[in-house]
Amino acid sequence: MALSAVFSSPLHLNQATTHLGSHSKWGADLLCLSQHRLIQVRKRTYGVYASLSEMGEYHSQRPPTPLLDTINYPIHMKNLTTKELKQLADELRSDVIFKVSRTGGHLGSSLGVVELTVALHYVFNAPKDKILWDVGHQSYPHKMLTGRRGKMNTLRQTDGLSGFTKRSESEYDCFGTGHSSTTISAGLGMAVGRDLKGEKDNVIAVIGDGAMTAGQAYEAMNNAGYLDSDMIVILNDNRQVSLPTATLDGPTPPVGALSSALSRLQSNRPLRELREVAKGVTKQIGGPMHELAAKVDEYARGMISGSGSTLFEELGLYYIGPVDGHNIDDLVAILNEVKSTKTAGPVLIHVVTEKGRGYPYAEKAADKYHGVTKFDPATGKQFKAKPTTQSYTTYFAEALIAEAEADKNIVGIHAAMGGGTGMNLFQKYFPTRCFDVGIAEQHAVTFAAGLACEGLKPFCVIYSSFMQRAYDQVVHDVDLQKLPVRFAMDRAGLVGADGPTHCGAFDVTFMACLPNMVVMAPSDEAELFHMVATAATIDDRPSCLRYPRGNGVGVELPQWNKGTPLEIGKGRILIGGERVALLGYGSAVQSCVAAASLLEHHGMHVTVADARFCKPLDHSLIRSLAKSHEILITVEEGSIGGFGSHVVQFMALDGLLDGKLKWRPMVLPDCYIDHGSPADQLSQAGLTPSHIAATVLNMLGQTREALEVMS
Amino acid sequence: MALSAVFSSPLHLNQATTHLGSHSKWGADLLCLSQHRLIQVRKRTYGVYASLSEMGEYHSQRPPTPLLDTINYPIHMKNLTTKELKQLADELRSDVIFKVSRTGGHLGSSLGVVELTVALHYVFNAPKDKILWDVGHQSYPHKMLTGRRGKMNTLRQTDGLSGFTKRSESEYDCFGTGHSSTTISAGLGMAVGRDLKGEKDNVIAVIGDGAMTAGQAYEAMNNAGYLDSDMIVILNDNRQVSLPTATLDGPTPPVGALSSALSRLQSNRPLRELREVAKGVTKQIGGPMHELAAKVDEYARGMISGSGSTLFEELGLYYIGPVDGHNIDDLVAILNEVKSTKTAGPVLIHVVTEKGRGYPYAEKAADKYHGVTKFDPATGKQFKAKPTTQSYTTYFAEALIAEAEADKNIVGIHAAMGGGTGMNLFQKYFPTRCFDVGIAEQHAVTFAAGLACEGLKPFCVIYSSFMQRAYDQVVHDVDLQKLPVRFAMDRAGLVGADGPTHCGAFDVTFMACLPNMVVMAPSDEAELFHMVATAATIDDRPSCLRYPRGNGVGVELPQWNKGTPLEIGKGRILIGGERVALLGYGSAVQSCVAAASLLEHHGMHVTVADARFCKPLDHSLIRSLAKSHEILITVEEGSIGGFGSHVVQFMALDGLLDGKLKWRPMVLPDCYIDHGSPADQLSQAGLTPSHIAATVLNMLGQTREALEVMS
Repeated sequence: MALSAVFSSPLHLNQATTHLGSHSKWGADLLCLSQHRLIQVRKRTYGVYASLSEMGEYHSQRPPTPLLDTINYPIHMKNLTTKELKQLADELRSDVIFKVSRTGGHLGSSLGVVELTVALHYVFNAPKDKILWDVGHQSYPHKMLTGRRGKMNTLRQTDGLSGFTKRSESEYDCFGTGHSSTTISAGLGMAVGRDLKGEKDNVIAVIGDGAMTAGQAYEAMNNAGYLDSDMIVILNDNRQVSLPTATLDGPTPPVGALSSALSRLQSNRPLRELREVAKGVTKQIGGPMHELAAKVDEYARGMISGSGSTLFEELGLYYIGPVDGHNIDDLVAILNEVKSTKTAGPVLIHVVTEKGRGYPYAEKAADKYHGVTKFDPATGKQFKAKPTTQSYTTYFAEALIAEAEADKNIVGIHAAMGGGTGMNLFQKYFPTRCFDVGIAEQHAVTFAAGLACEGLKPFCVIYSSFMQRAYDQVVHDVDLQKLPVRFAMDRAGLVGADGPTHCGAFDVTFMACLPNMVVMAPSDEAELFHMVATAATIDDRPSCLRYPRGNGVGVELPQWNKGTPLEIGKGRILIGGERVALLGYGSAVQSCVAAASLLEHHGMHVTVADARFCKPLDHSLIRSLAKSHEILITVEEGSIGGFGSHVVQFMALDGLLDGKLKWRPMVLPDCYIDHGSPADQLSQAGLTPSHIAATVLNMLGQTREALEVMS
Repeated sequence: MALSAVFSSPLHLNQATTHLGSHSKWGADLLCLSQHRLIQVRKRTYGVYASLSEMGEYHSQRPPTPLLDTINYPIHMKNLTTKELKQLADELRSDVIFKVSRTGGHLGSSLGVVELTVALHYVFNAPKDKILWDVGHQSYPHKMLTGRRGKMNTLRQTDGLSGFTKRSESEYDCFGTGHSSTTISAGLGMAVGRDLKGEKDNVIAVIGDGAMTAGQAYEAMNNAGYLDSDMIVILNDNRQVSLPTATLDGPTPPVGALSSALSRLQSNRPLRELREVAKGVTKQIGGPMHELAAKVDEYARGMISGSGSTLFEELGLYYIGPVDGHNIDDLVAILNEVKSTKTAGPVLIHVVTEKGRGYPYAEKAADKYHGVTKFDPATGKQFKAKPTTQSYTTYFAEALIAEAEADKNIVGIHAAMGGGTGMNLFQKYFPTRCFDVGIAEQHAVTFAAGLACEGLKPFCVIYSSFMQRAYDQVVHDVDLQKLPVRFAMDRAGLVGADGPTHCGAFDVTFMACLPNMVVMAPSDEAELFHMVATAATIDDRPSCLRYPRGNGVGVELPQWNKGTPLEIGKGRILIGGERVALLGYGSAVQSCVAAASLLEHHGMHVTVADARFCKPLDHSLIRSLAKSHEILITVEEGSIGGFGSHVVQFMALDGLLDGKLKWRPMVLPDCYIDHGSPADQLSQAGLTPSHIAATVLNMLGQTREALEVMS
């Protein structure tokens, strides 16, 4: 919780802020002293430079941020005037752009909430007050105002700051995020916990309009309305499904009637006109009105004809909005009002923001610079390496397009991840056969089951870690009924910069235990094409395939992108050897081949096989390997309970383990692996070719010296 | 799909209905002929007897059902007058009561939808039109009108009818159910599939108000509003969360603001008055009005002030209601109107029904006879065996109450399953520390995570198979953050009459792969008390325990119900033996002990150990067993990838498998096991004491004769 103290602060207020950062030890005197010092310092520096962002210009050098430089923790903001808060927001925006230009990351979402972040940290007292950032990719301004600005250069890198909120990183991150739509539930738990303990802090959950399409958000609002605990939900409506939909082709338009209702709401009257009309309205939230109440009234419900607010009101949340999310005056006034109104029950403040706000290149881009590589702030040009191969995501899309061209019954379903899954590409070719259901994985899977009932051939394309959210639907609606839904799970295994929330560690384990499921994984991109073709032909039961984040290995692709269906449950031997067999599954096969190459240098010739299928297993291949080798090592980028467990259970029941054969499983370790470079992660997981080769040498009783050559 | 033809029909129309049942082969002549015959037959018999239900009396003998006896498939209803439909509904209700009195089952829900079922099958043409019954426990009247009345005596029994809808049972069951809130998703998939194929059938999803609290229903409605495909959602509002909340203490009041909004809606004006007011209202749904439109208008939106309808309208569904769900006139008129209005997009018809309707004992009961054992129709008295022990559910509740008495930070969360989980009992003692969040497992888990953040000690009590619905929240919000949420998973393993939808097969597999989770299972009820106490003490990471459906084995309970915390990761040896070690996990330990007893009769003394923990494993126990025995058999009532997989992976990495030890896993087989008696299910699973003993003998090379003695 005190990790923030570890960060080196680059600021001249370092000493004072270190005290202030450990807020739980505040004494009143220290507080006064520090604020005094802060104000002095600010007066000395502030006003000298205007930040570049104010002039709408961006340079490749670090922008001057005189006011921001005085703010290391929220406490340093408390005496700022509104004008200064605006200045702070401008400087923060400049600095976010500059910092992210050096690291890459989620830029657009963070730019959209700069003013909201400043207003929240001005009005509320984190970490005593709990501010939860849904998904968490918009949390960069929050991180920079809560003691982590000096570490922004390490963002999403090995041992650096996480790209999401993370409890172990800072006490200001009261709840870890990554997957969407969790924060109203968690915030409600915190609010109820506070009430049970008789405490008085505020709980604020900031959630995007995209995240609002998930069922969990509805479940949580419904329960919040019922429990009537005080909490604040801030609907950050940027009229985008705000998850990575931009990889291939920019975001798709917002989906679902909820987004549509919100859009109607917004388009109903311009915000300015709305505010004019609102003058004189004198409703109140409850509790005594004070001087600021008029501000709140401007936004009070009842003003919007045909309002989208009723959905939230039906669920028992008091609706306020819409509020201009880039107007600090309004934000501060309304937040102060809501904060001072006690026992109001759950309140929803509908804030309208613009993704990419204030950075012209982001504002103009189709994806609003949702996720960017390193770029030049002056031109907005992203520095992208030109790999010789494309991503598995793109290959998957191309494979599916080829299948869909040959079979009109093939349809695609994804959950607000058109860019991330490649389905935006599919949609270009087959607009009537592609369904983006919103951030709604549960519905996506059962919807696909319904399509399969009608004889269509659905491919349901969901990241491995997001598939966890639809597990019951996979079990109950698809596998139990033996419906031929095809699950394509992108981002299987380690995922690099996105870290453990997005790591696809468990899919083989939770899919292969299902009785009717065909479970497969390609070892390279050509195999991916073949497995998509295979899945297309499997029409009597469900099937799934997993493939990794990242680019193909460079093998030759099938002609016209059209894969050849594989024999179900048949693996293949890639390298014939002796004594030791490496039986890989999925991307781990490449590591096995590389390990074999390392071992060749030691004069050792090991067998390498590609299992292709975890279910059904290739019994004859496994029997053959088991009977002709001393050692069988299964290798996979997945957790315990998956491929290796299936292999060993078969071998045990077949009596293959009763003789001299030694089996060793190599799986992901029993821990979560933090964000970092793919190479660092694989090394930390102990699944590099060197690790595999070292395991072989170790089992054969080789010396430490031989092992060291491997590492 | 054609299984319905297999059912023996007890009716005198057997031959005709067999033709009619195979509807896809209808010829117009045959249809006319059959209808002609039907009408003749009906005229001969109908009107002679009034059904007993009409007189409000119930007898223990089979009620006369002269009209129902002529209806074997929906086609036989098509020429009935409205008056005859009412008569049919009355007879159907009598027969449901009589049939369920002989078998037990879900009575209350089925009685609530008798008129709705009659109206749906009268207006629509199943199986061409798709009628989906959410959860499916209200489908008995549907089953009886679709060729399965003659098999109702086999309900929920081995080889008998399923208690839910099931695709493999009848082509009239277009989607299998069991878990709630799936049918709008599946129905939307079917509707979109229909449109893609250019076909014209109708899709109707019938869903309860309880099921509407689940996020998936919201995701599906949102997507339905967006896609705007023609489909009909019937909200069957019986003002109850309509899942088994009644086991211990009757149902809890409906939870959540949605239920509350619906109640307000209903209480706003009496239905009758509403209808009077409505006279003369002349709105139309769209499309030309015809003679029946006035009926629809009575219920058209806009009439209800402060209406709950807006939630559905916000989501893009055209709202009609509320409709009296026991008024066949109104139901038929409205369904006909909606059916004849094409391209209307998704329509929601809000139908108000009474659970247990028409059977005074059910109407008066707190649980509305949601689920009953066999009973006497004349008195409503249920025949309940008086077991000497209580259910694991009750023991769990008692254990948790004892812990909560000692620690005020312990709180309980369940998802609309107060009766089924025993939490109603907990709530009596700790009303402010018990949270029923509705059918919202996703929210339940993250809500618990939020409570844990505040230092509370949440026990999140969810059936094993329903935990599948919150898997991502378990991974992402709890385990990854190492928050001390305690998961108590009731109904682990085989569950008897409820069948495969409710079977807790996968929890050990999907929980034990998570890095931070403590995974345990009690072998008897005393152990359950100890493990609840253990979970209460584990405050630095998440933990879970699983326990079976059914009653305790009769061991002595701890004093004052207060368990003693176990050493984490420590198992125990129950019986010392030689050559063979049976290492059981959870309820399977009892089978191991019984197997050892069987083997004793053969003069064989095997070791039996109770692992207690799947994670962390008891390494020293396993090492000790592995080194002192020739054979180690792991036994569990769970799928592959669970306990056995963890044991063998440890043994492999520890080198314990490299010697002479033979390992055999005994797990649930790789198939879904249909509903039936627990004994039949265990036998089918191959996990009885006899199976275990036979496995031992087989491995020791015993003769076939010795094996046969075992079976």
